[in-house]
Amino acid sequence: MVAKLNSQWIVGFVDGEGCFYVGVIKNKTMTNGYQIQPEFTVVQHKRDIQLLHALKAYFNCGSVTVNHGDRYQWRVKNLDNFVNIIIPFFEKHKLKGKRGIEFQRFREICLLMKSGYHLTPDGFEICIEKAKNLRVKS
Amino acid sequence: MVAKLNSQWIVGFVDGEGCFYVGVIKNKTMTNGYQIQPEFTVVQHKRDIQLLHALKAYFNCGSVTVNHGDRYQWRVKNLDNFVNIIIPFFEKHKLKGKRGIEFQRFREICLLMKSGYHLTPDGFEICIEKAKNLRVKS
Repeated sequence: MVAKLNSQWIVGFVDGEGCFYVGVIKNKTMTNGYQIQPEFTVVQHKRDIQLLHALKAYFNCGSVTVNHGDRYQWRVKNLDNFVNIIIPFFEKHKLKGKRGIEFQRFREICLLMKSGYHLTPDGFEICIEKAKNLRVKS
Repeated sequence: MVAKLNSQWIVGFVDGEGCFYVGVIKNKTMTNGYQIQPEFTVVQHKRDIQLLHALKAYFNCGSVTVNHGDRYQWRVKNLDNFVNIIIPFFEKHKLKGKRGIEFQRFREICLLMKSGYHLTPDGFEICIEKAKNLRVKS
């Protein structure tokens, strides 16, 4: 059975376990030779895989797959799902930890990408730079 | 500033980051030569130490100390704080992951200890056995 989740529970869980990340991946088919790939991931030991399915069901997007060894992940990679689902959720329900700052940076990159700005040479460089500086180290 | 926490946020955060643990420590001053020590810990990188202080303020117990390197912990060790504060909270606000099973086992040990059962030879052995089997492995 998939547990029903509460919005504040999700915020607490993501403050602990969530990861907003923007990868820069070599891809010859792209104009700049690189693809910018936003990802939102929650990783759990397989004992709690049902929580990942519950997150997937709540947001109705992403997929649950193996992360590494006994660890599984719920991962969202689709830009429209960020713009339409994930970002509005965390705009409404604020993260309390430094994860909230990372979310704001992640959000900014996703919205720039949605506008197509990353397809211009300047926009591409700016998005790459923002992606590199997403993590809050201290 | 210490963030104000919501009960469901706390449940989500503890489902991700909390640890219920019962240590068995050599202690010559104890009748059986061992001390049974329940602990509830939440560990965070120092960047989010304010979340640990917020938990301490919410529950009004425990202390925030260094865990290891850049990691800090909010830890509760006092049996009366478990019986009067932590256990009632998680009885009212159910954990959703396997952490909830660990909490039930932890709760049982704390209540046995509160009754003084662990001070009898049988009770001591039973508490030790329950402590060993607290973790849900899969």
